[in-house]
Amino acid sequence: MQIDTASGVVNDIAAIGQAMRAAGHGALLMVDAVASLGCMPFEMDAWGVDVAMSGSQKGMMTPPGLGFVAANDRARAAHQTAGPRAPYWDWTSRDGDEHYRKYAGTPPEQLLFGLRQALDLLFQEGLENAFRRHRLLAEAVRRAVAVWAEGGAIGFNITNPRERSDTVTAVLTPGCDPEAIRGYCDRNCGVVLGHGIGELSGKALRIAHMGHVNAPMILGTLSVVEMALAALGIPHGRGGVQAAIDFLAGEVRD
Amino acid sequence: MQIDTASGVVNDIAAIGQAMRAAGHGALLMVDAVASLGCMPFEMDAWGVDVAMSGSQKGMMTPPGLGFVAANDRARAAHQTAGPRAPYWDWTSRDGDEHYRKYAGTPPEQLLFGLRQALDLLFQEGLENAFRRHRLLAEAVRRAVAVWAEGGAIGFNITNPRERSDTVTAVLTPGCDPEAIRGYCDRNCGVVLGHGIGELSGKALRIAHMGHVNAPMILGTLSVVEMALAALGIPHGRGGVQAAIDFLAGEVRD
Amino acid sequence: MQIDTASGVVNDIAAIGQAMRAAGHGALLMVDAVASLGCMPFEMDAWGVDVAMSGSQKGMMTPPGLGFVAANDRARAAHQTAGPRAPYWDWTSRDGDEHYRKYAGTPPEQLLFGLRQALDLLFQEGLENAFRRHRLLAEAVRRAVAVWAEGGAIGFNITNPRERSDTVTAVLTPGCDPEAIRGYCDRNCGVVLGHGIGELSGKALRIAHMGHVNAPMILGTLSVVEMALAALGIPHGRGGVQAAIDFLAGEVRD
Amino acid sequence: MQIDTASGVVNDIAAIGQAMRAAGHGALLMVDAVASLGCMPFEMDAWGVDVAMSGSQKGMMTPPGLGFVAANDRARAAHQTAGPRAPYWDWTSRDGDEHYRKYAGTPPEQLLFGLRQALDLLFQEGLENAFRRHRLLAEAVRRAVAVWAEGGAIGFNITNPRERSDTVTAVLTPGCDPEAIRGYCDRNCGVVLGHGIGELSGKALRIAHMGHVNAPMILGTLSVVEMALAALGIPHGRGGVQAAIDFLAGEVRD
Repeated sequence: MQIDTASGVVNDIAAIGQAMRAAGHGALLMVDAVASLGCMPFEMDAWGVDVAMSGSQKGMMTPPGLGFVAANDRARAAHQTAGPRAPYWDWTSRDGDEHYRKYAGTPPEQLLFGLRQALDLLFQEGLENAFRRHRLLAEAVRRAVAVWAEGGAIGFNITNPRERSDTVTAVLTPGCDPEAIRGYCDRNCGVVLGHGIGELSGKALRIAHMGHVNAPMILGTLSVVEMALAALGIPHGRGGVQAAIDFLAGEVRD
Repeated sequence: MQIDTASGVVNDIAAIGQAMRAAGHGALLMVDAVASLGCMPFEMDAWGVDVAMSGSQKGMMTPPGLGFVAANDRARAAHQTAGPRAPYWDWTSRDGDEHYRKYAGTPPEQLLFGLRQALDLLFQEGLENAFRRHRLLAEAVRRAVAVWAEGGAIGFNITNPRERSDTVTAVLTPGCDPEAIRGYCDRNCGVVLGHGIGELSGKALRIAHMGHVNAPMILGTLSVVEMALAALGIPHGRGGVQAAIDFLAGEVRD
Repeated sequence: MQIDTASGVVNDIAAIGQAMRAAGHGALLMVDAVASLGCMPFEMDAWGVDVAMSGSQKGMMTPPGLGFVAANDRARAAHQTAGPRAPYWDWTSRDGDEHYRKYAGTPPEQLLFGLRQALDLLFQEGLENAFRRHRLLAEAVRRAVAVWAEGGAIGFNITNPRERSDTVTAVLTPGCDPEAIRGYCDRNCGVVLGHGIGELSGKALRIAHMGHVNAPMILGTLSVVEMALAALGIPHGRGGVQAAIDFLAGEVRD
Repeated sequence: MQIDTASGVVNDIAAIGQAMRAAGHGALLMVDAVASLGCMPFEMDAWGVDVAMSGSQKGMMTPPGLGFVAANDRARAAHQTAGPRAPYWDWTSRDGDEHYRKYAGTPPEQLLFGLRQALDLLFQEGLENAFRRHRLLAEAVRRAVAVWAEGGAIGFNITNPRERSDTVTAVLTPGCDPEAIRGYCDRNCGVVLGHGIGELSGKALRIAHMGHVNAPMILGTLSVVEMALAALGIPHGRGGVQAAIDFLAGEVRD
């Protein structure tokens, strides 16, 4: 998984690929790029990734309903003799001449049209620009969270700053009820934050900053979280949004 | 005009109506409520308004293309002998039995369906709640502008705080180029601010806060303006968005 | 009026222009092209038309809400001293530098975007092809009506075949109740036919075949009208739809 | 399969269930109702069906992307010990408390909202009325095909009239090229007919009449097919559409 949407961690796929090759291990390297594709670099061939998969609903900026899988020659060869096989997942049998077998059922054309538009948007912006936008907006979120964390009630889930992803930030809430914050933002401001999932259930909230997002969306969201912290009397460092604005003003010049 | 979208002033229609009646003047009182209807109280009958008009595209939260006119018995009676008359504007001839004459041309049905949805949203929220939402968000904008104004480069167009409208705030820019701010926000952040119009052309910018707006939209917009002020090196009091957040957090409780 | 949507007549604008010039009369020639633009040739300059107007909702294939006016130099010159003038309709004052004055109010951007798409469709098809499509589909309607008319209960409003328009066909109903036919089609089949308007009120129904229409739409509509004639026991020549199909099959070859 | 979309056959599920029970066989009865649900009766419990599945894109009148599965107590009990199991398909593990596990991935909310609207339409019409609509429109198609078949070039795929489904009609084309017909309709009229699939590939075309269809759509489609038969010189009995209109006019009374 390049980015894990539950924990907010980003993994160094290039390093993992290198380590596997260095160890001489012949296993296929399969990467879940659902929460990262389109938001940060992903170099399937250069990094030695054999199978990659992603979905439409995150960095691809299209409603949910499409999944993608890409396999290189090594993976396709290995699949010839692999088992168990189920028709639904069998990409070898799907990889034939019959057009309609490419899809795992009736193709949702409306989503394919939407994806085409989304890709046009992405290429118009330029991938490098889209990556930079994600880096800056993610860092703005982190600046705000870092300030708020001074109050002791909340903090980062990922302790190593270099492992914090540019698409989602998981915020631990040891000193407060994450559902109170989420409820305030939703009921009063129409902002839906992610809840903690898996082992973070009830212990965290998540701020997403992936795909079709820009500065006013992110700064508006952070402002609402800061409203919630203040209105609910949760101890927090003052000036989180200010820090985010200061950071972005320093980076974004005409 | 209840609210003038160019200057951002709000007029006290009730007082104007009272003054006209006190003076014994028989003139009809006609009010342009385009920039105010649905955003603040408008009591046509109680305030002695004879003719009121509005449009779809502001507080009515529907795309532009619909105009509304309401006339009381006094205005309808006066219109019987009024001149000059043009078929397009002649509400007396439109007020007959033939349904299709109610509209000044082919009715844009798609906008009527949209208006129906918008009114449902408004009534579901409740008019009093919608008015309060506008008051709070407008005050948040004013808190931010007041802080920024300490730098001397920008300030309010309307000097009397009681005359500042709850739907749009006109910001004078004596110490900077308003188009530089507008350009930064648009190019870098996708936020389009209003420019000064009429005699404020080139001397002001306008922040709209009417209709389908909520806290993250307004705070996101203010954050982007603050980014622009900082990035462009325009002198401004620090902490405008912070003041807006503090104000809203104090007013909006679960 | 190039085509009158009430009567279904098409006027020969070129001949009218020629007659005016032949008579040496200096009056301006103004043409309402609402029900014809995009559906048949309209040569403003070649025909000596001074002012032309149209709307978005017919051949322009865009929802109602936009009106267009075009004036040549002669008309613009005449307008300088013309009266009476009203600000709303005054194209001379609108023809200045201020962009926003081009529109008679807040521009309905959503319709302008829609019009752009519709024009793309029209130009992609090609104007000549669009004109031919209208001619063929209109003739298909006329073939069906001509067969039905043999029963004596219905007939053409326009007696001269050369004056029947290619965008709408008005059908007189001397031997039956047009509202019974319209009601049957609407209630049972979801097809809304036009009713007679003006002096044809209660005496006719109208079949529109303008703008975004194709063979299955027109043949489906004719089929439903034929269902109504049969189900309601209205005397009619048998085989109207058959005649329409035969005609189109003869004209439309791969 | 209640209706097989490739062949156009309808199976008598009630009889199959009865036969299984009469034989004392304990196998589960699983029914694919993709091409039938919402278009004809399906009585899961009364017919002894243990597992039923369907999709959004046919009688459910919603874009493709949703699949549904329903299982009765017997099937759920059997599943506890069944194998092989894959997480994606494992309804037992999905049937727990965690809401998000109900879906096989991120739920496509936009389709769920669409389905809600489609169900509202269906319930507003009434299931019995929807079934009748499908029966009548299907019979209209069959009347037309039966007439055309007199020419010898085309005919029904399903020989027993009682086994012809009310949602799709497969038309064999022993005396002509089905792709020529399909191409004519698509290129000239914007009507896309189904092609033959599976063993009918290249030997048939299919006319769908399921879901959001009404009389003008079906009669328009049949008219276009008749245009194609005539324009392409394919021998066919004359009057297919006429027969369809006559049938519907006899059945649909105000």
